[in-house]
Amino acid sequence: MGNLYLGLLHFPMRNRRGEIVATSTTSMDVHDIARSARTYGVARYFVVTPLPSQQAIAWRIRGFWTEAERIAEASRRGEAMEYVVVSEDLEETLAWIEAAEGSRPLLVATSARPTAKAPILFAELRRRLRTDMGPVYILFGTGWGMADELIDACDAILPPVMKDSDFNHLSVRAAAAIVLDRLAGDRYE
Amino acid sequence: MGNLYLGLLHFPMRNRRGEIVATSTTSMDVHDIARSARTYGVARYFVVTPLPSQQAIAWRIRGFWTEAERIAEASRRGEAMEYVVVSEDLEETLAWIEAAEGSRPLLVATSARPTAKAPILFAELRRRLRTDMGPVYILFGTGWGMADELIDACDAILPPVMKDSDFNHLSVRAAAAIVLDRLAGDRYE
Repeated sequence: MGNLYLGLLHFPMRNRRGEIVATSTTSMDVHDIARSARTYGVARYFVVTPLPSQQAIAWRIRGFWTEAERIAEASRRGEAMEYVVVSEDLEETLAWIEAAEGSRPLLVATSARPTAKAPILFAELRRRLRTDMGPVYILFGTGWGMADELIDACDAILPPVMKDSDFNHLSVRAAAAIVLDRLAGDRYE
Repeated sequence: MGNLYLGLLHFPMRNRRGEIVATSTTSMDVHDIARSARTYGVARYFVVTPLPSQQAIAWRIRGFWTEAERIAEASRRGEAMEYVVVSEDLEETLAWIEAAEGSRPLLVATSARPTAKAPILFAELRRRLRTDMGPVYILFGTGWGMADELIDACDAILPPVMKDSDFNHLSVRAAAAIVLDRLAGDRYE
């Protein structure tokens, strides 16, 4: 499979009033998405925030589980947390992937709302990963979603997970798990 | 679609040493799974715990979002929380469903580990829901998973979500989201 990367972005996001803000890092976002990422064979999970204080929080959450004392316990959570990389901005993570892979990844946005950008089908991106056409980097937003300029800067966007539901307010933890399952999950059922 | 119900059970669960315990209710489990359940059209999401103090916590989390003041805010989270029912034990939830549906639901366990019980395929349960063969009630465990007696008491069990992965430690929030997507998600992609 082509290498799959995930990024959880905290800037530039919209708040409930549509203003552009940097959102807070939450422990549960780091943990849950790290465990899902590891289960589905994701190469790295980037937690991206421009705020040094928030970066420190994310590193601390990671470190709590990856340090020797915690590994000694029965939990395997540390194994998932080792795949977490805390970064300052999107460019830094793109440079990280390019250095590791030798090529720039296909940069794919996600959104709970339909956008002006024509979406790539889950099945198409799944095929691309199976046929090893280079790295794919999926971005997830926080707060009330990614700023339009960020979505515009991506190579592609996935459709909303349940676009015909009358309620489409999944947590980012749930959305990331579902997207991973659609792109890289078992399909023999 | 046949009506789908979810239950998050806190007893009888295993802890990391394999002992049978009642686990704690967590705010994030109530919230995330309520939002996923509402997105996928689940009829009710039962949070089941025998401990009165834990039931009170779960009701309080629900009430925070469903009370008038919170509904007045822009968030639609209260709409998801209205589908949460806090219950004392599995029997109480089965009686609730039977009263609402006029028949006992197919009771389906989930587990991250392969079990002695032969699993029902995701595709088969999905077909059953599509062809409206009566209510289906999916149970999720907490802690280190459901006690064997509980699994034995169910009519069926789903296979582990990613049984061939070398790491299979999804959060229950992620597992519930993925199971819902496999059973009730869009498949036109």
